[in-house]
Amino acid sequence: MSQPTEINLGVTADLHVHLRDGEMMELITPTVREGGVSIAYVMPNLVPPITKIDQVIRYKKNLELLAPKTTFLMTFYLSRDLTPELVEKAAILKVIKGIKCYPAGVTTNSSAGVDPNDFSDFYPIFKIMEKYNLILNLHGEKPSTNHDDIHHNNSHDDNEHIHILNAEESFLPALFKLHQDFPNLKIVLEHCTTKAAINAIEKINSKNVAATITAHHLYLTIDNWSGNPVNFCKPVAKLPSDKSALINAAISGKPFFFFGSDSAPHPLSKKSTHVNVCAGVYTQNNAISYLAEIFQNFDALDKLKNFVNDFGKNFYNINDSDEIIKSKDTVILYQEKNQVPQLIKNDLIGDESLVVAPFKAGEELNWNVKWRAS
Amino acid sequence: MSQPTEINLGVTADLHVHLRDGEMMELITPTVREGGVSIAYVMPNLVPPITKIDQVIRYKKNLELLAPKTTFLMTFYLSRDLTPELVEKAAILKVIKGIKCYPAGVTTNSSAGVDPNDFSDFYPIFKIMEKYNLILNLHGEKPSTNHDDIHHNNSHDDNEHIHILNAEESFLPALFKLHQDFPNLKIVLEHCTTKAAINAIEKINSKNVAATITAHHLYLTIDNWSGNPVNFCKPVAKLPSDKSALINAAISGKPFFFFGSDSAPHPLSKKSTHVNVCAGVYTQNNAISYLAEIFQNFDALDKLKNFVNDFGKNFYNINDSDEIIKSKDTVILYQEKNQVPQLIKNDLIGDESLVVAPFKAGEELNWNVKWRAS
Ligand SMILES: [Zn+2]
Ligand SMILES: [Zn+2]
Repeated sequence: MSQPTEINLGVTADLHVHLRDGEMMELITPTVREGGVSIAYVMPNLVPPITKIDQVIRYKKNLELLAPKTTFLMTFYLSRDLTPELVEKAAILKVIKGIKCYPAGVTTNSSAGVDPNDFSDFYPIFKIMEKYNLILNLHGEKPSTNHDDIHHNNSHDDNEHIHILNAEESFLPALFKLHQDFPNLKIVLEHCTTKAAINAIEKINSKNVAATITAHHLYLTIDNWSGNPVNFCKPVAKLPSDKSALINAAISGKPFFFFGSDSAPHPLSKKSTHVNVCAGVYTQNNAISYLAEIFQNFDALDKLKNFVNDFGKNFYNINDSDEIIKSKDTVILYQEKNQVPQLIKNDLIGDESLVVAPFKAGEELNWNVKWRAS
Repeated sequence: MSQPTEINLGVTADLHVHLRDGEMMELITPTVREGGVSIAYVMPNLVPPITKIDQVIRYKKNLELLAPKTTFLMTFYLSRDLTPELVEKAAILKVIKGIKCYPAGVTTNSSAGVDPNDFSDFYPIFKIMEKYNLILNLHGEKPSTNHDDIHHNNSHDDNEHIHILNAEESFLPALFKLHQDFPNLKIVLEHCTTKAAINAIEKINSKNVAATITAHHLYLTIDNWSGNPVNFCKPVAKLPSDKSALINAAISGKPFFFFGSDSAPHPLSKKSTHVNVCAGVYTQNNAISYLAEIFQNFDALDKLKNFVNDFGKNFYNINDSDEIIKSKDTVILYQEKNQVPQLIKNDLIGDESLVVAPFKAGEELNWNVKWRAS
């Protein structure tokens, strides 16, 4: 099949981004647009987590100052700091679009998260979310059990344990239960990494339950991050069969699979360390180009616009004509050799140590993006 | 069961050590004895690999200068540089005790290794080894397939691929075939990490086929090395069920399971990096103490002497009265709080960057070792 050399992807959306705060925010926020993304759904895992109305308004304003043409959709961090009243007020004021749920302790700044074995304390909040069409974004992993505690020697059944390979699959029953208890609540299983998760979303087969897929999980398997902390993220990339299932889902044309990069920048010093490497892969500055490469390899470039535009925006009920959209410029994907920089840095920012190693640093991609004024 | 507070472990043996060369050798070689090991079986993966008689004699002499009371047993690196004539000569001269086989490309300095899908080119060498009772030491992993090459999207069968989780299990048929073709050849499956490998050794159930087990694989699972490059080694630590199988084998009292630490020092700079982390965990300076902790947890301290002394030495046909034994001092394991240092370093060595992060740096162990003159 002959491939087009230029594709208008429209007003694109990345429904899972980490923009941090402080100098890292200054460095990273402009790269959303550089990477070909118009609408960014912003994660709330700052320190402290975003759980207050004035806090989320201030954060959004800071982001808009750094990238006036990017549309930022904001989120709260699900924790005991939230109340149904607060969530209702935030919904009415339209300051948040959804709420992110982190199981306690599974990834960067998730220590304030919840126990995925029992969401019932949060049911009053989910009721309000359902009423106001707020999205519930799930980091779908159970926390690993502490293997050091296992001092009896006869536990040969891996299903007794939660480890990084079964953490996502072990979470899926909680997803089914949430959907059953709140059939009208819009739920996104974020950055899914397993064939089991893909199968679960297809089985639920609802207009209210979707999954985001990152760019890097379309490339990586366990071999790529073992020994390469730059590729280490949570959930970890898994086996070849899982990667295949993710690719098939991304190019399937099914509306419940859409793009969320989970681009998660960390200072290089937190990735180049022999202990406690921060989890996260930074892909923002070439987000769409990484995807194009994979879609091209599988003869599916015609499915890319659905994945990075229509499906996510439909699920989130976003229209290009909405007044919240900051710019109606469209993204043009075109064939051009495009070398990923070795480091993301900004000489204007004082701290020289604030550099980020991007995914596939130094490698050459076949696609680039440019913007066309609306 | 009440535990003894002091155990005489005799003339101990660690049947898989990496002592490197140059300044790293100077730093590490004395730590064999510090860790409670008398006899060390030395791996040949230097640059260039050890494949010559004068080279192995020189290397051994250097090691003995650094640690006169340690007995070093030497090995060749299986490659096309070896000939049956050379191996026969080395056997007659007694300059080597065995030959280490690395599949090409699986770990540190293994690029000169062999293709584990077909050992037949080396059969004339194995014949000579069988004749002279040389040990064949196998790094039992198949090299990972290059997942990037897989551009068709329907390969949902992980058994089509070799990845770091199935690399050892995929190697086991080659072990069975080697034993079948050379039933009198002594073969050691090194640093095994899976229940499948343990089961294979038990199934073969021969006085000529054994497996070494490291200290760190009795502690680690995949969760411990993901995000902690200090714990990353090849083969990688696997699932909780695999760790349980290794512990059960180590404390089983079965003579074909014995200690090989695979202590593999790397400069800290090669572990603290976001790409291409060197594989290897350094455990040498507390080798026996790490083991004692596990054996105590499983009420099996009475099995420790077999594991670190009799079983390995019997397999290797080593007696304490042999003239090759440099010192008949015995190792006393005793209860004492013993903090693992943050870094292994030597102020006498010029290069300040030559430091090694040990396993469980900074943690407190319950056992220490001392030497008793014979
Ligand atoms: Zn995320
Ligand atoms: Zn080794």
